[in-house]
Amino acid sequence: MPAPTEFLDFVDSNADAFIKRLGDAVAIPSISGEAAHREDVEKMAKWLDEQLTAVGVETKLVDLGDQTLPDGGKLKLPPALLGRIGSDPKKKTVLLYGHFDVQPARKEDGWDSDPFTLVVHEDGRLVGRGSTDDKGPILGWLNVLQYHFDHKKDLPVNLKFCFEGMEESGSDGLDDLVKKESQPGGWFHGADCVCISDNYWLNTRTPVLTYGLRGLTYFSIHVSGPSRDLHSGVFGRTVHEPMTDLIALMGKLVAGDGRILIPGVEEMVPPPTEEEKAIYERLDYSIEDIEESAGAKIAIADDKIDALMGRMRFPSLSLHGIEGAFDGSGAKTVIPAKVSGKFSIRLVPPQTPELIEPLVTFFLESEFAKLKSKNSLTVEHLHGGKPWVTDHNHWNFEAAKAATRAVYNREPDLTREGGSIPVTLTFADALGVNVLLLPMGRGDDGAHSTNEKLDRSNFIEGTKLLGTYLYEIAAVDQ
Amino acid sequence: MPAPTEFLDFVDSNADAFIKRLGDAVAIPSISGEAAHREDVEKMAKWLDEQLTAVGVETKLVDLGDQTLPDGGKLKLPPALLGRIGSDPKKKTVLLYGHFDVQPARKEDGWDSDPFTLVVHEDGRLVGRGSTDDKGPILGWLNVLQYHFDHKKDLPVNLKFCFEGMEESGSDGLDDLVKKESQPGGWFHGADCVCISDNYWLNTRTPVLTYGLRGLTYFSIHVSGPSRDLHSGVFGRTVHEPMTDLIALMGKLVAGDGRILIPGVEEMVPPPTEEEKAIYERLDYSIEDIEESAGAKIAIADDKIDALMGRMRFPSLSLHGIEGAFDGSGAKTVIPAKVSGKFSIRLVPPQTPELIEPLVTFFLESEFAKLKSKNSLTVEHLHGGKPWVTDHNHWNFEAAKAATRAVYNREPDLTREGGSIPVTLTFADALGVNVLLLPMGRGDDGAHSTNEKLDRSNFIEGTKLLGTYLYEIAAVDQ
Ligand SMILES: [Zn+2]
Ligand SMILES: [Zn+2]
Ligand SMILES: [Zn+2]
Ligand SMILES: [Zn+2]
Repeated sequence: MPAPTEFLDFVDSNADAFIKRLGDAVAIPSISGEAAHREDVEKMAKWLDEQLTAVGVETKLVDLGDQTLPDGGKLKLPPALLGRIGSDPKKKTVLLYGHFDVQPARKEDGWDSDPFTLVVHEDGRLVGRGSTDDKGPILGWLNVLQYHFDHKKDLPVNLKFCFEGMEESGSDGLDDLVKKESQPGGWFHGADCVCISDNYWLNTRTPVLTYGLRGLTYFSIHVSGPSRDLHSGVFGRTVHEPMTDLIALMGKLVAGDGRILIPGVEEMVPPPTEEEKAIYERLDYSIEDIEESAGAKIAIADDKIDALMGRMRFPSLSLHGIEGAFDGSGAKTVIPAKVSGKFSIRLVPPQTPELIEPLVTFFLESEFAKLKSKNSLTVEHLHGGKPWVTDHNHWNFEAAKAATRAVYNREPDLTREGGSIPVTLTFADALGVNVLLLPMGRGDDGAHSTNEKLDRSNFIEGTKLLGTYLYEIAAVDQ
Repeated sequence: MPAPTEFLDFVDSNADAFIKRLGDAVAIPSISGEAAHREDVEKMAKWLDEQLTAVGVETKLVDLGDQTLPDGGKLKLPPALLGRIGSDPKKKTVLLYGHFDVQPARKEDGWDSDPFTLVVHEDGRLVGRGSTDDKGPILGWLNVLQYHFDHKKDLPVNLKFCFEGMEESGSDGLDDLVKKESQPGGWFHGADCVCISDNYWLNTRTPVLTYGLRGLTYFSIHVSGPSRDLHSGVFGRTVHEPMTDLIALMGKLVAGDGRILIPGVEEMVPPPTEEEKAIYERLDYSIEDIEESAGAKIAIADDKIDALMGRMRFPSLSLHGIEGAFDGSGAKTVIPAKVSGKFSIRLVPPQTPELIEPLVTFFLESEFAKLKSKNSLTVEHLHGGKPWVTDHNHWNFEAAKAATRAVYNREPDLTREGGSIPVTLTFADALGVNVLLLPMGRGDDGAHSTNEKLDRSNFIEGTKLLGTYLYEIAAVDQ
């Protein structure tokens, strides 16, 4: 069941109004990571609440309590905004997630225009903080609702909404809310599937459905020796230097070609099946795409399938930096007393933080013992999250594929994300239903960067895609 | 020729006045490294000028022009203070060096009392910034002059003074001044030897004469790849990561036991002679001294001679840190785009920065080639200075040994410093005469640290030592 032609026409003829509304949303600097902007996040919640109410959605702003700051202080969390419309037991129920908070942005960071004024460029770029992450997609759903409200049309499915204002700051408070509301009697109970629009196409050309995410496990290796920083003139070649030990350990973790050298970590991952390889082969992607987005010819792989699997279905280990060492410009002859090396591993099934952590700790401790250093080593596991892969032949995905064909006239690319979107796992675990990641924006949108943009065509066709997806959900066999 | 008993008695009976004067000097926060205190350095120069003039020294404040700041701005340099007293052609001429600027200090850094108020403790500690580095030694010379002025006694030698106010900030402008004034007709021309009191005893017990300094060569290894920082979720195992390459390179430079792994660097240093070993054997030093000053049981050597040679007569390599990587607390999943690893090598004869630099560059470039990375490497040599070793049997040293025996009733320890005091080489090269380092303070004075102190006995007996040294210089055979 395709969407009514009337809906598609409505979206086209209201495009300017939709863009204006996106401008209103971008104008509220709802930066969750800056205390000074916390009330703007709250303002954004209220703005969105009014918009949803105006198109017939029943809403509830949920107080999530206080955030505990690093200094021990408390800051009120912005509310989560829950919504629902329709309760026809004959229709499927779709739960939609989005976030109305944004990353920090300042003109001085290198923006060509004020980040909180949406600028419509001739080439179609709608530039502003939050345009693509994640106000654009949220407003896409609002556009769909607008049509049905204005035309007094029933939606083809029952909808539930979960919009949060802390996504860019760790989704404080959301996990508990989702678990609670997924119980019988809860707001989300009875959802048949979930759709999240908060990631991106692989490139600038081909629509994407995403069925997997890598997990993460983050470590800090602490090496300490002297009771204070020492001068290398006085102590060089006299004492065991923590930096020498730490660099030796960090140098044993990963090879230049990305292979993880911690015994047991790579071995845990099964080789790809022929069916999987065929998916990667089909993807609209090239080594040039990597190099263009990295801004340099530094791709590890020569081969597209290897490159895609490196990003999506193999684990990776990145060395992020060192805390406690000299990190300024110039030349300082210090022997730092205590240094902490930071690295993280992106995980794929069947890896989990719980399975990986003992391998990492055992390996680092045995390598440290080989150094015969008199310094001390502590391996700290900072945080982690499981990887996620779902069935991309599920009816939720089939509906999205049909919608993509209808709107974009092509098959979507089936991707796994190299990064994590933790809320995906929260919904999958709490509700036990299929979760679809249905991105609106392109791979070059620069979500957390300067000059973040959403292309006009992605916003408008993306609105059609979201609406059509709901009609296809209604039609697809469960 | 020992110093007159009257001089020694004068020093004892004027001890309180001398300490009060040290307090006046400490009270001027002459921090050369902070622009806001630049006028205090100038004030200190003028204070010292008045003190010297009052005891009969002819002085000259030399304008050193402007300092160029990192941001390109200009800041007026404090003047150097030159002095001279006596011009008897039958007497030897001794050039004395000291610096009247100090390291930064703030009570909040962990001082037990205001750093710029000299506190006299019951246990004899005189606590205050600059007490030992280097106002105490300068005032020691002033105390010696005070005696001769008050008692209308001629000094046993002609004296020249070179006091600077930028030592803690790279001795800006001093090299050119010393070179110029060492030419015929210059202020320093004709000096027969140099004495610098600006280092420390090895421990808290035994007086020291220092006859060597290690040199230094400082490197920054830059590895760059992507055009901007990347997200490890999106790019992990897709691109060559600069941190992976940098850590691999930094891990190849030095072994845990301090041996430098760059081919050719260790090999350049001859093994110690038996005579040298005997010097180290005699030194009043132990592994416990290292561990006490480092605040932890992390000494590399089990053996005193090995430990001392590791510090004094072998090169060392320290890894100081990384610029451009994640260096904060917490967990950030960044792939830094450009990282710079900082390390330096302490040099001993016959090593020089010029000899070492090509070995380092060749080694790093060949190791980088082995990594087969598509990132770029640049090896930058930031700065360097030659090592220095002089003849500790020279009459300048013999006079200091005799003075030490007379005042402290014991043989001084003959040491080489692990660090560098660049002005030593400047004087040695410009004048071509023997330079003696004659420390006043103890190894635990904490020169650049919180609660910097000079012990009352080191200040008072040290004043006697400086005066006696001049009498022994007059007596010793040239
Ligand atoms: Zn987002
Ligand atoms: Zn985001
Ligand atoms: Zn000094
Ligand atoms: Zn100093």
